[in-house]
Amino acid sequence: MKAVYLEKLGVPDNIIVGDLPIPQLTPNSVLIKVSAVAANYVDAFIRAGIYKTPLPSPYILGRDAIGQIVQTGERVKKFQVGNWVWTNSMGYDGRQGVCAEYAVIPEERLFLAPTLEIDPLALVGAVHSSATAAIVLSDIMQLKANQSILIEGAAGHVGTKLVQLAHLLGAHVVTTSRDGDFNQLRQLGANACFDYHDPQLFQQLKTYLPQGFHHIIDTSGQVTLQQNSELLALKGTLTLITRPKDSAFDAAQFYMKSQQIKGFVISQATLPQLQRAGKWLTQAFNQGLLLEENLAIYQFEQAQTVHQLLDTRAEARKMVLVP
Amino acid sequence: MKAVYLEKLGVPDNIIVGDLPIPQLTPNSVLIKVSAVAANYVDAFIRAGIYKTPLPSPYILGRDAIGQIVQTGERVKKFQVGNWVWTNSMGYDGRQGVCAEYAVIPEERLFLAPTLEIDPLALVGAVHSSATAAIVLSDIMQLKANQSILIEGAAGHVGTKLVQLAHLLGAHVVTTSRDGDFNQLRQLGANACFDYHDPQLFQQLKTYLPQGFHHIIDTSGQVTLQQNSELLALKGTLTLITRPKDSAFDAAQFYMKSQQIKGFVISQATLPQLQRAGKWLTQAFNQGLLLEENLAIYQFEQAQTVHQLLDTRAEARKMVLVP
Repeated sequence: MKAVYLEKLGVPDNIIVGDLPIPQLTPNSVLIKVSAVAANYVDAFIRAGIYKTPLPSPYILGRDAIGQIVQTGERVKKFQVGNWVWTNSMGYDGRQGVCAEYAVIPEERLFLAPTLEIDPLALVGAVHSSATAAIVLSDIMQLKANQSILIEGAAGHVGTKLVQLAHLLGAHVVTTSRDGDFNQLRQLGANACFDYHDPQLFQQLKTYLPQGFHHIIDTSGQVTLQQNSELLALKGTLTLITRPKDSAFDAAQFYMKSQQIKGFVISQATLPQLQRAGKWLTQAFNQGLLLEENLAIYQFEQAQTVHQLLDTRAEARKMVLVP
Repeated sequence: MKAVYLEKLGVPDNIIVGDLPIPQLTPNSVLIKVSAVAANYVDAFIRAGIYKTPLPSPYILGRDAIGQIVQTGERVKKFQVGNWVWTNSMGYDGRQGVCAEYAVIPEERLFLAPTLEIDPLALVGAVHSSATAAIVLSDIMQLKANQSILIEGAAGHVGTKLVQLAHLLGAHVVTTSRDGDFNQLRQLGANACFDYHDPQLFQQLKTYLPQGFHHIIDTSGQVTLQQNSELLALKGTLTLITRPKDSAFDAAQFYMKSQQIKGFVISQATLPQLQRAGKWLTQAFNQGLLLEENLAIYQFEQAQTVHQLLDTRAEARKMVLVP
């Protein structure tokens, strides 16, 4: 079968598009015919050897896939041949990746794709950022209805998912973005939008909610830890999913306000967290939410180009690879 | 009655030892004859106006007291005249303090003192640090049996309480202190003791537990945030109850390891947290644990001296005031 794989980690030129055997089914797994694979920044970190994780050799790239089941293992109960399914936790931590014509996926890492007419590419392009947002909101922040949340860089891939899911949870959602994105963010569920180029932004957010936000998350890496700590309420939680602009902060003020900083990266998510998120996302996808409309679609043969674009961050759209 | 009070915040010289009316009982409160009052650093911060909190005027100093009930409000159910009781949450957040011959305490902020022969001064001297340790371990860290905890500056007032309570919870307790304190800390429950003057301390702790600690707390303020972050396990929690030596840290490593920093100060504890801690401490006191043996005892008339010693940190023993 056609596969996109590595024999050694390193630069995008190391990526091979060639022929590998169809993988062997196991009793608790299914074999899927892959329709599309998402390209994530973390895929490039794994390829480069920056994110260190156990990998098989040769290592097939790719963490997120959507496809159709063509064979099921003897102990598989929840799925049958013909089902459309997705996964978002392959290709790291010892598991083989999915960027190939066929892939074997453990039943526990598989979710049914919606039965409505939903574009499978828009779905697979959404699962990485959506699962990150879902686990952050429910497990890391434990966001409650009527709590306030400030989402910085809200028009990005993770930001738009955070806005939609936080709104579903009944939170008061405040966003920062370019002002050109305000309308979209309001449609997705933002209660108030602020321009992150406004030099008065910090003062405006202070004035908007003088007691501070219960939760803050910066998806942009453009805000200092100190500034977010000052915008945080007493006992508020700041969640880090990317490196802040500057990580110096006033730790004395922080502990005297009983605040918290919680780091999260989806590669460290537990299987139960991924499973709960997967169920929630399947519901949201069924309602037409979260789907990634603005895609850049590439063939498997263009995988080196896709990884160059990941490395240089030269493509703002979500990239998806098809066989 | 004799009372130690302020008419305006500021230097220790502002402290007046004089005559005030016995406070008025309310239906849900009891009137106690005060036996002893603990002196905490936070009392000095309140006196100086550094820790800002609503206060009555005149403001009677003191947060922790032990005494005997002489009168109960009509709705009080759990206590009766003659009971020995303690409290540790008066004198801030709008509540009058306890450094007087008599004090009115709401029933909900009162705990029975052990019936065994326990020195009331050793108890009142222990409640501030013990409640801090109890809430940190159970509510902030949510420390579990068999988890590892590194307690830095473990021979201090809070440190010794953390060691005893973490040991009671079944944790693997590792401490840093002067080597002269190792024997005492082992008796209190430490599984391993390290000398904090050892220039190889960091490397020794790394070698002792290469996968890192589930929990770290620095009671000394002598360790950098970065060093503790490096000693922390994947998904580990660092709790701040004092300002770290240096608060710069590698936030990228931090979030990629899904670590957390949680600040805590007991003045922000909720009433349910204080109540749960109070029950736990009463049990521990009954077992003869936590009690503060090494006290410096002063008369109410010496309150200015006590506050000068708090300001200059010139007295390492716990100070207790008696009428």
